Amino acid sequence: MSKQVEFFFDVGSPASYLAWTQIAKLAQRHDAEVVYQPMLLGGVFKATGNASPATIPAKGRYTRVDFLRFARRYGVPFAHNPFFPINTMQLMRGAAAYLGTERFVPYVEAVFQAMWVDGKDMGNPEVLAEVLAGAGFDTAELLQKLNDPAVKDRLRQITEQAIERGVFGAPTMFVGDEMFFGQDRLDFVEEALG
Amino acid sequence: MSKQVEFFFDVGSPASYLAWTQIAKLAQRHDAEVVYQPMLLGGVFKATGNASPATIPAKGRYTRVDFLRFARRYGVPFAHNPFFPINTMQLMRGAAAYLGTERFVPYVEAVFQAMWVDGKDMGNPEVLAEVLAGAGFDTAELLQKLNDPAVKDRLRQITEQAIERGVFGAPTMFVGDEMFFGQDRLDFVEEALG
Repeated sequence: MSKQVEFFFDVGSPASYLAWTQIAKLAQRHDAEVVYQPMLLGGVFKATGNASPATIPAKGRYTRVDFLRFARRYGVPFAHNPFFPINTMQLMRGAAAYLGTERFVPYVEAVFQAMWVDGKDMGNPEVLAEVLAGAGFDTAELLQKLNDPAVKDRLRQITEQAIERGVFGAPTMFVGDEMFFGQDRLDFVEEALG
Repeated sequence: MSKQVEFFFDVGSPASYLAWTQIAKLAQRHDAEVVYQPMLLGGVFKATGNASPATIPAKGRYTRVDFLRFARRYGVPFAHNPFFPINTMQLMRGAAAYLGTERFVPYVEAVFQAMWVDGKDMGNPEVLAEVLAGAGFDTAELLQKLNDPAVKDRLRQITEQAIERGVFGAPTMFVGDEMFFGQDRLDFVEEALG
């Protein structure tokens, strides 16, 4: 398995959720490995001067329709989160904490499901604890990880690396040096792997 | 021919050019009519608070690559215009002037070709006159049309209508009340017509 697709994402991004539902299957079809790169989208926005489409009201209204159309095409559940936008610093530190372990995918799955299917207020620590306990996570252990300087550094390093490589939004995929922005570019990612 | 697709565009938008190269053929495949809606993208941006992706440097660099990928997929020529962004007020008044006449498509074709294939400085009146004279237009007659209050009104009205209907960028297509933003949503337009 020599082919790789890097997947930079933030759980606060609905487009990242939509791409997440597809990326593992897509990679499998091409005998490629997904290299998960959890980053802090807020940090990327700050460094690049970019912002969520939702900051433009007309664009925000349209993107909701657009996401629903893609969810229908992919055959996956999707609902706009009434608490959007949510500060994802703690959530993404959690992803960085589990990166490279067996718990990474279940953690991200649980958070994405809560955010973009069940419409939970995942910026609220109590809701977060409840959701993760329900998914079988030891929330006391997780809380400890979130305050681990090594975990904070890991998230910061991946975010800085993303910015250096030209990332300005989420999700962003790389196949070698080729960058693809958006869940609506998965077909191009597939061509690059093919 | 009862089916229609409305096509809101501005010649200053490279994505509008890419969609333009596809929209007539797409409509023909579905026995649908294209209702051309020339609008002033600058007016849309001002009213909605939106801006060109090129205002974010990292996004601007990526979109150039993205447009080249789509041009390759469509099999059409494309080159970034070194004079971008160009004030398209006069160019779009020209499009509004010819709207509903046999000269509309040849006019828009000539302007798009100059903008997004030949890289001409179409904000310069001399370059504009040269390009249009070369395409067989009577530039004295056109200059007169550009100053016609009825033409100015037509462009303003289409732009205002676009904003009222939720348009925030170009190109934007409507099939009935369903709105589709971007040259990368032509597949959804096709589904809506099918």
